[in-house]
Amino acid sequence: MTLSIHPFDPLLPEEISRAADVVRPHFAGREINFRVITLREPPKKQMIPFLEKEHRHQPVGVPPTRCARVEVVLESKTGNHELFELLVDLDNNRVTAKQHHKGKHSYIDSDYMRKVENACLADERVQQQIRSLDLPSCATVVVEPWAYATDGMNDMTQRITMCWFYCRLLENPDANYYAYPLDLCAEVSEQLQVTKVYRLPTSPHERVHNEDRPFDRQRVHDTALSEYHPELRPPPRTTTKPYQVVQPEGPSFKIRGNHLTWEKWSFRVGFNYREGMTLHDIHYDGRSLFYRLALAEMFVPYGDPRAPYPRKAAFDLGNDGAGLNANNLQLGCDCLGTIKYFDGYHNTSTGKPLKMPNVICCHEQDDGILWKHTNFRTGNAVVTRSRILVLQTIITVSNYEYIFAFHFSQDASIFFEVRATGILSTVPHAVGLKEKVPYGTVVAPGVLAPYHQHIFSLRIDPAVDGHANSLVVEESKALPVGDPSVHNPFGVGYIAEQKVVEQEGGFDLDLTKARVFKFINESTINPITNTPVGFKLLPAYSQMLLSHPDSYHAKRSEFGKHAVWVTRYEDDDHFPSGKHTMQSSGGDGIASGIAKRDATGMSHSVRNSDIVIWHTFGSTHNPRIEDWPVMPNEKMMVGLKPVNFFLGNPGLDVAVSTQDKNKSVLYEGEEKGDACCHSRL
Amino acid sequence: MTLSIHPFDPLLPEEISRAADVVRPHFAGREINFRVITLREPPKKQMIPFLEKEHRHQPVGVPPTRCARVEVVLESKTGNHELFELLVDLDNNRVTAKQHHKGKHSYIDSDYMRKVENACLADERVQQQIRSLDLPSCATVVVEPWAYATDGMNDMTQRITMCWFYCRLLENPDANYYAYPLDLCAEVSEQLQVTKVYRLPTSPHERVHNEDRPFDRQRVHDTALSEYHPELRPPPRTTTKPYQVVQPEGPSFKIRGNHLTWEKWSFRVGFNYREGMTLHDIHYDGRSLFYRLALAEMFVPYGDPRAPYPRKAAFDLGNDGAGLNANNLQLGCDCLGTIKYFDGYHNTSTGKPLKMPNVICCHEQDDGILWKHTNFRTGNAVVTRSRILVLQTIITVSNYEYIFAFHFSQDASIFFEVRATGILSTVPHAVGLKEKVPYGTVVAPGVLAPYHQHIFSLRIDPAVDGHANSLVVEESKALPVGDPSVHNPFGVGYIAEQKVVEQEGGFDLDLTKARVFKFINESTINPITNTPVGFKLLPAYSQMLLSHPDSYHAKRSEFGKHAVWVTRYEDDDHFPSGKHTMQSSGGDGIASGIAKRDATGMSHSVRNSDIVIWHTFGSTHNPRIEDWPVMPNEKMMVGLKPVNFFLGNPGLDVAVSTQDKNKSVLYEGEEKGDACCHSRL
Repeated sequence: MTLSIHPFDPLLPEEISRAADVVRPHFAGREINFRVITLREPPKKQMIPFLEKEHRHQPVGVPPTRCARVEVVLESKTGNHELFELLVDLDNNRVTAKQHHKGKHSYIDSDYMRKVENACLADERVQQQIRSLDLPSCATVVVEPWAYATDGMNDMTQRITMCWFYCRLLENPDANYYAYPLDLCAEVSEQLQVTKVYRLPTSPHERVHNEDRPFDRQRVHDTALSEYHPELRPPPRTTTKPYQVVQPEGPSFKIRGNHLTWEKWSFRVGFNYREGMTLHDIHYDGRSLFYRLALAEMFVPYGDPRAPYPRKAAFDLGNDGAGLNANNLQLGCDCLGTIKYFDGYHNTSTGKPLKMPNVICCHEQDDGILWKHTNFRTGNAVVTRSRILVLQTIITVSNYEYIFAFHFSQDASIFFEVRATGILSTVPHAVGLKEKVPYGTVVAPGVLAPYHQHIFSLRIDPAVDGHANSLVVEESKALPVGDPSVHNPFGVGYIAEQKVVEQEGGFDLDLTKARVFKFINESTINPITNTPVGFKLLPAYSQMLLSHPDSYHAKRSEFGKHAVWVTRYEDDDHFPSGKHTMQSSGGDGIASGIAKRDATGMSHSVRNSDIVIWHTFGSTHNPRIEDWPVMPNEKMMVGLKPVNFFLGNPGLDVAVSTQDKNKSVLYEGEEKGDACCHSRL
Repeated sequence: MTLSIHPFDPLLPEEISRAADVVRPHFAGREINFRVITLREPPKKQMIPFLEKEHRHQPVGVPPTRCARVEVVLESKTGNHELFELLVDLDNNRVTAKQHHKGKHSYIDSDYMRKVENACLADERVQQQIRSLDLPSCATVVVEPWAYATDGMNDMTQRITMCWFYCRLLENPDANYYAYPLDLCAEVSEQLQVTKVYRLPTSPHERVHNEDRPFDRQRVHDTALSEYHPELRPPPRTTTKPYQVVQPEGPSFKIRGNHLTWEKWSFRVGFNYREGMTLHDIHYDGRSLFYRLALAEMFVPYGDPRAPYPRKAAFDLGNDGAGLNANNLQLGCDCLGTIKYFDGYHNTSTGKPLKMPNVICCHEQDDGILWKHTNFRTGNAVVTRSRILVLQTIITVSNYEYIFAFHFSQDASIFFEVRATGILSTVPHAVGLKEKVPYGTVVAPGVLAPYHQHIFSLRIDPAVDGHANSLVVEESKALPVGDPSVHNPFGVGYIAEQKVVEQEGGFDLDLTKARVFKFINESTINPITNTPVGFKLLPAYSQMLLSHPDSYHAKRSEFGKHAVWVTRYEDDDHFPSGKHTMQSSGGDGIASGIAKRDATGMSHSVRNSDIVIWHTFGSTHNPRIEDWPVMPNEKMMVGLKPVNFFLGNPGLDVAVSTQDKNKSVLYEGEEKGDACCHSRL
């Protein structure tokens, strides 16, 4: 008996091939570069009755049409590329929609980027500049092509690539070339022509310059300072003893295809080229909580004001793809314990399925104590340990790594953890400058790590006991003193004020009011608390985008302006910076969408509606030298917790902890003897 | 060979006995209640040269005098108690100081509290009120005596105890009596006289009343809603499979007495009745980071404005003692893996040593990935897992539990984690009220869990490469646009502005500026970054105290006003709300100390000085029903991370992860077969 396809399942390899087959005749005679062949998730209106029946174990009838979303690029002889998007009905093998996205670009094409590298290195002006650097003979020049971040200096209808230069001084190809940024820059056109070559600034107040300046040999430094690869390092510390997780009865989760059940949780795992891991139809103890959870975008703008550095600003989902760049996770390295791996599928440029093994790992972790109480009158302690289920994916975007993980808890809370690691993006810096750089940290001789931000958008599609939900802003406020109409005789009273949000919009955090954002279902009243059932967001407290509102960075990443956004649900609306972020110029983001709906008079009430919450968070990352040459992870955590949703602690029935099951070991290796040089005993 | 005493070691049992012996003759003929016999930590001026020699493995010479701090209470025939504090030179067995703290009270005396309970229950007016309640015949009345939180209504020179009433309806003494708060209150004097008996309000706008109102039988509810003890619960879930931590070569830490080394870390563990766990002389890789770390205070004010609830406001360290209330931790329950337990010692009221077993546990945990990078050109991934060392202590303060843990990381960062768990403190509430209560949550029929705050003060005594440190406030600010003197052509530049704090004071967090607090050593310049070496605080973003500045709550817990305080180091200055918090009336806290030093013209510059940083954080806890009947832990996390202190990632030499050592297991239990009710394949 084979496993059937669920409407939320990513496309099967066979479906990817078939979608390509259906699309090809629509571009007869042209060479097609298949960029995307992915599931178009079914309209929610169709999914709701399907899921309701499924949860009741009733016959689901005819499931929603299986549909592929396809993006193809046609390359013209002039090197321009035209982007088309098609929808393919896979039940009937036909194209149901076809759109030419004029002036828009597909995400970064790694094959094309390799061509850019080669074209750049083959250019005589580039070679002349490299020669003028008079690099050490052992040096290998490395070109790092980056998507051009719009700065208003170019017509953006054609692709432009910024090429940054580094060099390796060691033969080992895993040597850290970010340790040797060169003060050289080249711009490459859509047609693979090097259009500009110039020198980069190397001091705080310097502008782009053109004089030939040789490589400063003072920048050659000890490998111990800048290499991270074990082959290039002294032997590692040996003090860390092995630590193993043993699950003698196997894990507590059950998996059927992409459906996962664990400790009263039930949900489906999805995966696509752009968002990477997605989660669907999340229930706890049979009750609906979320329709969908996924990271929606990530923007990484650099704060170095000197041209051309404002062109460094990456949309790591829209431009690069969290799915496309997902690591092949390794047993015992990326995950510990008993591990289930999920594979992903993308497509080749010719429309064949491309397997991406182990892009998601699923495992359990012990998470310390879930709850404990000791009755001080009886002395009896009751303690339960917290087990969490982790779904983790790791992506590499050039220099940086991001580790994304959803944590499911036995108390019906969900956490989304981001760990930033990898290597800082560096720029050249004159050695020995005494002047303090106010927008970067010198992490090695001649190496500046500029300040930058990592700004994430987590898309939360709540389905709290159903799909008609409301966003509530709760604030804890001191009661006034001296107001005869308010009973607060001792000045210590405080209340929680709640306001239901009526219209789409963006909101900020406010620590001084302990502002909390809740998603509630106004029509389901908790019989004990007598208040609507809900979930709350535990935000990751973060600074928002620092770029000026008129800057292209700000226009392109509108979600970076506010910490919490609420919009009405729309199918396919997964893109808070627009669907096409490559060289975008703004106006496609979440704020523009709200403004447009407002301007057209289209209703955008969000009360008792199918709403989506977008949480913006991240880090203002002013590098430390401790982040070099590879960065110890920087953690960010977002939480979702029930608030008056259940009738009590949802983890109350977790069994108490016992040594019998946990088999801990008493440490008896204590060293005896004189620990210091004097004795009194 | 015996282990010698280190100056930071808590008093040995023999020293406790000896200190009592030395003190007794000073109160000849009086009955002495020994409340405290604890180490008086040596003056830092003496410790610095001692530790410097110790770290250089040089003879330390004569160590600082071993000194005990003793608090005794003498009870007069009128029932009043007089509090004395003495210092005992244990090297010479003599009292070196003796002070009578007139009008001050020692911390809560559990023996006395039992007498209060008994006196209360023996009182005829109380019994009359209980009879008028007409409780179910199965009911056992439970009196919960609380220290009186000053509200200005009483002369505070004598102890007053607030007695709250609950009842148990089940025979089992572990039944959750907080599920049946009675609308009864009694006040008991120092002399164990019941001075007032009255009824509590049970609706939002009600005041204290006097009519006899019987217990509402509608409040009797299903045990499933309110019992947490396994004997009173249905069988627990059985889905959670065992999860064991195996360390085949033992743990990575080494312990000699109270000295601990682990993964380049070195520090000493201390313990006292009030702060509980303390950490001393913390080094990483031979470099000094912190002289001392400990939780210094915790304040839990309730926000219900109705009298007498403003009298519910607990100083859980000053009044109760984090050490005194530390749990006896159990192998396999409170901790997993290979565990070292530390015992603590307190004293009996007669001056004998009192062993408190297993008050601190020490163990390692796997903490996911420490750092990772994949070179996208070679495809080679390098990944290291993060191991952390956890020092954990758990305290029970009546209804609540707090789990405190220091986490040491291989990247030289330290985190202080607080988990709040246990049972909500409840008050009676009329059943079936339709009116929304703005300052509490109904968690069971007739049970209101009032809003409250948990406000912690973490005392950080930095010794960043030495004892002369400065506090720096760093803010990330967008560069101005349109200012011709500033180069910011694209409006995307931002800088980090740093200001060194010159004077003692309190500061707030500011998310909009990504405000960061750093402790730096201005005289040690990092040779690569060319900036002073430092550490930074990763604050737990929290609302500060909500009580009105003129309220007693605010006057008593001055630290609750600002998130970060800096003061000049002074010996024995460990008390941000004053040493004597029981029925305190304010003016003893951190702000008053600063103001007093300011008023006397005493220099309080904190630049290049021996400074102490106090971080205020916590939670505005507006209970959810999910916190009932026992609360799934609510986590708060504070971090300390090096900033340009080292020459690079301090965890760079952690060995890469290998399956060979980690022995993970591939999950192969996937269920095959039809997961839903339709099939396409």
